[in-house]
Amino acid sequence: MNIRTVLVGTTHPGNIGAVARAMKNMGLSDLVLVKPRYFPHEEATARASGADDVLENAEVAGSLAEAIADCVYVAGASARPRTINWTCLDVRDAAKRLVQESNRGKVAAVFGPENAGLCNADLDLCDSLLSIPSNPAFSSLNLAMAVQVVAYEIRAANAEKLPEYLADAPLATAAEMEHFYVHLEQTLRATGFLDPDNPRHLMRRLRRLFIRGRPDRNELNILRGILTSVERYGASGAADEAAKESK
Amino acid sequence: MNIRTVLVGTTHPGNIGAVARAMKNMGLSDLVLVKPRYFPHEEATARASGADDVLENAEVAGSLAEAIADCVYVAGASARPRTINWTCLDVRDAAKRLVQESNRGKVAAVFGPENAGLCNADLDLCDSLLSIPSNPAFSSLNLAMAVQVVAYEIRAANAEKLPEYLADAPLATAAEMEHFYVHLEQTLRATGFLDPDNPRHLMRRLRRLFIRGRPDRNELNILRGILTSVERYGASGAADEAAKESK
Repeated sequence: MNIRTVLVGTTHPGNIGAVARAMKNMGLSDLVLVKPRYFPHEEATARASGADDVLENAEVAGSLAEAIADCVYVAGASARPRTINWTCLDVRDAAKRLVQESNRGKVAAVFGPENAGLCNADLDLCDSLLSIPSNPAFSSLNLAMAVQVVAYEIRAANAEKLPEYLADAPLATAAEMEHFYVHLEQTLRATGFLDPDNPRHLMRRLRRLFIRGRPDRNELNILRGILTSVERYGASGAADEAAKESK
Repeated sequence: MNIRTVLVGTTHPGNIGAVARAMKNMGLSDLVLVKPRYFPHEEATARASGADDVLENAEVAGSLAEAIADCVYVAGASARPRTINWTCLDVRDAAKRLVQESNRGKVAAVFGPENAGLCNADLDLCDSLLSIPSNPAFSSLNLAMAVQVVAYEIRAANAEKLPEYLADAPLATAAEMEHFYVHLEQTLRATGFLDPDNPRHLMRRLRRLFIRGRPDRNELNILRGILTSVERYGASGAADEAAKESK
């Protein structure tokens, strides 16, 4: 399956092994570890109980951005509701979505460190949050347990035939979206809409809006074309100013 | 909930603790242990990570028959299909059934020893088998993982649907979106990105992108603010042009 599991900052190597086993039980094999505290480690191997192949093929990445650069859809595990204006799917819907999007490219389910979960900067890289409904009075699942539930739901979703909607181009990847955000921020500084001294979470807000729209590559090219046209529009004024000054 | 978890002949005390945590995470609390090899045990307490109350209230029974004596419905975890002529439900359907039957009395989900699973004599005491769909080439889940999936499905069988995300303002109305599109089109003509003689369905394209993002009113205000800043950005150049021409 075109579905990657990404563990960010895992502190207990035993959990990495238990995750590998849970993945393999459900037919998943693509594991990426972002800055694991210990890996490889004998405890990981012990807990994998035969899923050694998943551990051996696991890649280690230096950042979440690197781990998901080639992905077209990313779901980040989080307690719900973390904040406003953020698509949050329960694990069943998230698994269906992951399976659906995996027909178009690589997708990822991302899990944070045991104690704190994913930080906001990492959640900002995700298309949606994924939450496992649980007891509000005791809601924190063990990391490997959470992966087990997600992997189980992915297997269950895969067993169903899901309707698909068609884009006329491949969806933009996470790396392409990042380039767009950089371009957008640069343009908004130029127009004066974004005050670098008082950014007021503007970029985060815009990210969430655009990530909900899920542009395909053609649409992203249109958006970037608009930014370029705005830059030229202002530059004509700047050129005039320069011409005036030189007079 | 009127739903009991029964572990038969558990050999690793750590698994008992992990089961207690998984149960409490999903709002279950009734745990019965049939002939556990070690209990109580410090490893069980460690892995319970705060679900000590579930462990403390756990009862120990001498046989499965004793553990389920007061139950009206019993599902026994088993690889599928163990044998013919035995009702076997996958975990989702089994969980729905357990929830349904629990309206009439105590029900139980039963799990066997780590290495062998439930013996036939114990399965004979069950109303149906319960199986977790898994990778046929690597099908044996860790005991606590299996309990986690069952407990998760029990909770899901009761769950309400929550909205995908919470907006901090009312969603933009169709009329507000129309005003935005008019403003957007006007701005794109000004920057020169939209050629009125060759519009190439550009506005339709952008409409679809923004409608998928479903902006709320605050977000729409941000977008319109950006358009206004672009207009001013270009107007500074236009003003310069006019000044030049009037010279």
